[in-house]
Amino acid sequence: MDKTRLRCKELESKVMTAQEAAKIFENDMVVGASGFTPAGYPKAVPVELAKRAENGEEIGITLITGASVGPELDKELAVSGVMKRRFPYQTTNECRNAINEGNIKYQDMHLSHVPQWVKYGYFGEMDIAIVEAVAITEDGGIVPSTSIGNSATFIENANKVIVEINTSQPAELEGIHDIYIPQAPPNREPIPLVSVSQRIGTTYIPCDKEKIAAIVFTDISDSTRAVAPIDDTSRKMAQNLIKFLKEEVRLGRLPENLLPLQSGVGSVANAVLGGLCDSDFENLEVYSEVLQDSVLDLINANKVKFSSGTSITLSPHRLPGFYEEFDKYKDKMILRPQEISNHPEVARRLGVIAMNTAIEVDIYGNVNSTHIMGSRMMNGIGGSGDFTRNAYLSIFTTESIAKNGDISSIVPMVSHHDHTEHDVMVIVTEQGVADLRGLCPQERAEAIIENCAHPDYKEKLRDYFNRAKEGKFKHTPHLLKEALSWHEKFLETGNMK
Amino acid sequence: MDKTRLRCKELESKVMTAQEAAKIFENDMVVGASGFTPAGYPKAVPVELAKRAENGEEIGITLITGASVGPELDKELAVSGVMKRRFPYQTTNECRNAINEGNIKYQDMHLSHVPQWVKYGYFGEMDIAIVEAVAITEDGGIVPSTSIGNSATFIENANKVIVEINTSQPAELEGIHDIYIPQAPPNREPIPLVSVSQRIGTTYIPCDKEKIAAIVFTDISDSTRAVAPIDDTSRKMAQNLIKFLKEEVRLGRLPENLLPLQSGVGSVANAVLGGLCDSDFENLEVYSEVLQDSVLDLINANKVKFSSGTSITLSPHRLPGFYEEFDKYKDKMILRPQEISNHPEVARRLGVIAMNTAIEVDIYGNVNSTHIMGSRMMNGIGGSGDFTRNAYLSIFTTESIAKNGDISSIVPMVSHHDHTEHDVMVIVTEQGVADLRGLCPQERAEAIIENCAHPDYKEKLRDYFNRAKEGKFKHTPHLLKEALSWHEKFLETGNMK
Repeated sequence: MDKTRLRCKELESKVMTAQEAAKIFENDMVVGASGFTPAGYPKAVPVELAKRAENGEEIGITLITGASVGPELDKELAVSGVMKRRFPYQTTNECRNAINEGNIKYQDMHLSHVPQWVKYGYFGEMDIAIVEAVAITEDGGIVPSTSIGNSATFIENANKVIVEINTSQPAELEGIHDIYIPQAPPNREPIPLVSVSQRIGTTYIPCDKEKIAAIVFTDISDSTRAVAPIDDTSRKMAQNLIKFLKEEVRLGRLPENLLPLQSGVGSVANAVLGGLCDSDFENLEVYSEVLQDSVLDLINANKVKFSSGTSITLSPHRLPGFYEEFDKYKDKMILRPQEISNHPEVARRLGVIAMNTAIEVDIYGNVNSTHIMGSRMMNGIGGSGDFTRNAYLSIFTTESIAKNGDISSIVPMVSHHDHTEHDVMVIVTEQGVADLRGLCPQERAEAIIENCAHPDYKEKLRDYFNRAKEGKFKHTPHLLKEALSWHEKFLETGNMK
Repeated sequence: MDKTRLRCKELESKVMTAQEAAKIFENDMVVGASGFTPAGYPKAVPVELAKRAENGEEIGITLITGASVGPELDKELAVSGVMKRRFPYQTTNECRNAINEGNIKYQDMHLSHVPQWVKYGYFGEMDIAIVEAVAITEDGGIVPSTSIGNSATFIENANKVIVEINTSQPAELEGIHDIYIPQAPPNREPIPLVSVSQRIGTTYIPCDKEKIAAIVFTDISDSTRAVAPIDDTSRKMAQNLIKFLKEEVRLGRLPENLLPLQSGVGSVANAVLGGLCDSDFENLEVYSEVLQDSVLDLINANKVKFSSGTSITLSPHRLPGFYEEFDKYKDKMILRPQEISNHPEVARRLGVIAMNTAIEVDIYGNVNSTHIMGSRMMNGIGGSGDFTRNAYLSIFTTESIAKNGDISSIVPMVSHHDHTEHDVMVIVTEQGVADLRGLCPQERAEAIIENCAHPDYKEKLRDYFNRAKEGKFKHTPHLLKEALSWHEKFLETGNMK
C-alpha cells in the first residue's frame, strides 16, 4: 500500500483485492463507473466481476459511465453477460455487437443529461459507484485520474463507493481537476464559470468516508487507441475549415483568436483540430470533452493557450512524453466534470465553436451521428448534441464518401436523425464548405450538393432534388418513396451508386 | 398625440402617419419586428408598406420577428410580395402557402437562437427595427405592449427604429415587462435569474433616441384567435398527464408543487395546461413563452402563483375581462425577452416541465413538430426545442389520430425530425402515456405502440415493428423500404390505413 496515494489513515482498513471487491456487486444492481473515452475507467474490479459470471453466477447489472471506456470494463462485462443495460455511450466492438444483436439494452444519451438523470432518480437508486483515482486525500477526498466524467455525481448519489487507486497513473495529475457540481432544481444556481481557464471548484471529489466499501490498488494502464495519422482527406477538411474561420474573422463575426474550440473525438476530429497548427491563429482556447493528441500539438505549436476538458486521452506513444513534460502542460489544462464540460449553460455563454463529425448528412443539413443504415448503432451521440445545440458556430465534418466510394456521406435523407436542420450551421467535407446559416431548405440543398458532395454522387443528388421540387409542397421537397432508397440499395448491393 | 403615451418631448417631432413611416423602407432591407404569437406586433405601418408594393413599387424585405404575428404583418406582406425571406416562425395561411409554393424563403429556427444570430451578424446588418409599444418614457425608453419577443435586441442592433404606439393596448401594461439582454461572447456573464418571479432588468427597452426614425400612433387591436373549447380528447390527454405527474411526485422525483411549467401554443396545449385546474396541484409556476387563456384560468383557480412568458395572447373574448381585472393578474405575471424566456441556461436551471404538441411521433420517440408528410411546412419548431432539450421533464402530447382517423399520429418513422430520441422523455395521447426514460429503442417502440397508439393502428404498427426486428441489426429496427410508406399511402389515397 502506497501511503502517498492513500493518505487517509481511517480508510486503510478498506483496502482489499480486486477479487474481494468484485463480491460487493449483486444481481440487478445499478452501477456508475468513472471513465470517459478509454481514460480513467476502473479496470481491475470489472475483470474480476466478469469472472464471477463466467464461473456460473447469475449476475447482471446496469452500467452507467461518463462515455466510452476500455475493454476491461465494456468488453469484459459485455462478453460475460454481466452487462444487461448500458448508458450513455460506448465504442467497444463486443459491447456494440451485443447491442446490435439485441442482447444489451442501450440508451444513447446526451452526455450532459446523464448526471442530472442520476440526481433526478431517473435511473433508479444507484447501488455502487466505482471510480479510478490517483490518490485519496487525508480527508477521504477522491482525486480522479485521466478523466472525471460523472464520477463526482456517481459518488454523491451511490450507496457504496469502490475506489481503484491506479499507480500507473502519475500522482502529478493531482491538481489538474476542478470539481463543481450544480444542485438540482429548484435550488440550482448559475454556474459561475465565465472563462476557459477559470477554477470554480475543488481538486478532489468530496466523499462520505462511510460510503467507501473497498479500495483496490492496481497498475493497469488506460487502454487508449492510437489516432490515425493525418491523411490528405483530413488535411483538406482542415484547410477548408481554416479558410471558413478566417473569413468569419475578416467579416467581424469572430474575434481574431476565435472563440473556445470544441472538437469531437476520434481520428478525423483530431486531424481537423490538429490542422490549426498550420494556421495563422494564435491564443486559441479549447473548451471540449476530450483533450486528444492534437491539443498537445497545438500547445507545443504555441497556438493554444488553455484547454479544458473532462478527459485526457492520448495515443499510447504520446503518453510517456506527455508525462515527462507534464510541467509544461499542467498550467494549460483543466479537467472538469462532464456536467460542466458539456453544460448547455456554459457552452452558450462561452460561445463555443462546435466541430463534430457526422456519419452522414442530408441535403437539408440533418445529421446522422449514430446509426449505420438506420438500424445499426455505431457508438452514440456523445457530447455532439450538447455543444451543437448551444454553439456560437456549429460545424460538422465528414468525408464526402465512405467505403471507397460505395457510400455517399451526402444523402437525400439521413437514415437516422441526431442533429436537425435547426441545429446545424456549417458542413465541411474535403470537397468544400456549405454555410447553411440563413438559408431556406432549398438553398441548403443547393449549397450542400454543390459544395460538399463527392463528384461521383453530385448528379444523382441533383436529380433527386430536382424531381422532388416538382412536387406540390416545395418548402422541404422530398420524394418519400426514394428518400431512403440509397440506403436500401446499399443494403441490397453493397453500393449506393 | 397622447402625451401620457409619448412622454419624451424631444421625440415629438418624430411623430408621423403610418404612410409616411412606410416610406422609410427600401428594397432589400433586413427588418426586425416586434410580435410573438399575434400579440404586440406592428400593424399600421406594415399595411402601408404593402400598399407601396401593390402600387407597383419594387420593394422586397427580409422579415425577422419574435414568432408568429398577425395578418397586418404576415398576411399583408406575403400577399403583396414584399416578404422575400422570413425568420423564424409563422402561422398565417397566406404566409404559409407562399412558403410551401417556394415563393418565400423561410428558415424555421429555434426561437432562442434568433436574438444571438442578430448580435453575431448572421442575418447581416439590420436596417430597421419596427416595434409596437404602449408608451415611450421621458428618456426615450420603449415600453412594449402584449409581447416582447426580440424587440430589445432588434432595437439595440438596428440602424433605425420605428415605433407604433398602440393606444388600444392598455397603458397599465407598463411595469409588467422585465428587460434583460445578455452580452455576446466572449463577454457573456451568467444570467442572474434563479426564480420564475424574479426581476433582473428594466420595465422598458433602452433606446438611443437618435435612432428613432418614426413614431406612429395607432389603435388597431391584436388580432388574436380564440382557442377551441376543451373537448373530450384534450380532457383525456390532460387526465393522463396529471396522473403521470402525480406518480412522479409520489416517487419523489418532483416536488409537490411540481417545477415551472412550460406549455406549447395553440388549442391543444392550452387545453392540456388548463386541465390542471381540475387537479390537486397548488402553488404552481409557469415559465413559458406564451401566456394563453389557461394561465388566467389557473390563476383564477388559485393553482398558479406566478407566470412568466414573453407574450400574453388571449382569445378575443377573454381580453376585456383580463384588462378589467388587470390588478389581480399584474403581480402574478412578468413578460421577458424571448432570449430569456426561452434560454437554455434558464430552462435547465429552473428545471422546467416542457409540454409541447407534436404533429406525429414515431415508434422510437422521434417527434415531428413542423412538416405535414415530410415536405409541407405547417408553422415551425418555435420554442419547443429550446425547452425540450433543457427540460427536467420533456413531454409531447398529440391526439393518436388526425383527420378523423385517416392519419395515425404514431408512425414507423416520422416524415420530418424536429426532436430526436435523445430529447423526448414522455409521450401523452388520449390513449395513454409512454414513459421513455431509460428505455432502449425496442422498449420504446413497445411502450409507444401499446400505450399511445390508436386501436385502429396498433396491429399495423406491431406488424411493422415485429418484421423490422427480424433484420440483422436490432438496436433500432427499421424496414427502410416501408419506414415512410404510411405517409406515401396517405399522399396517394388520403388514408394511412
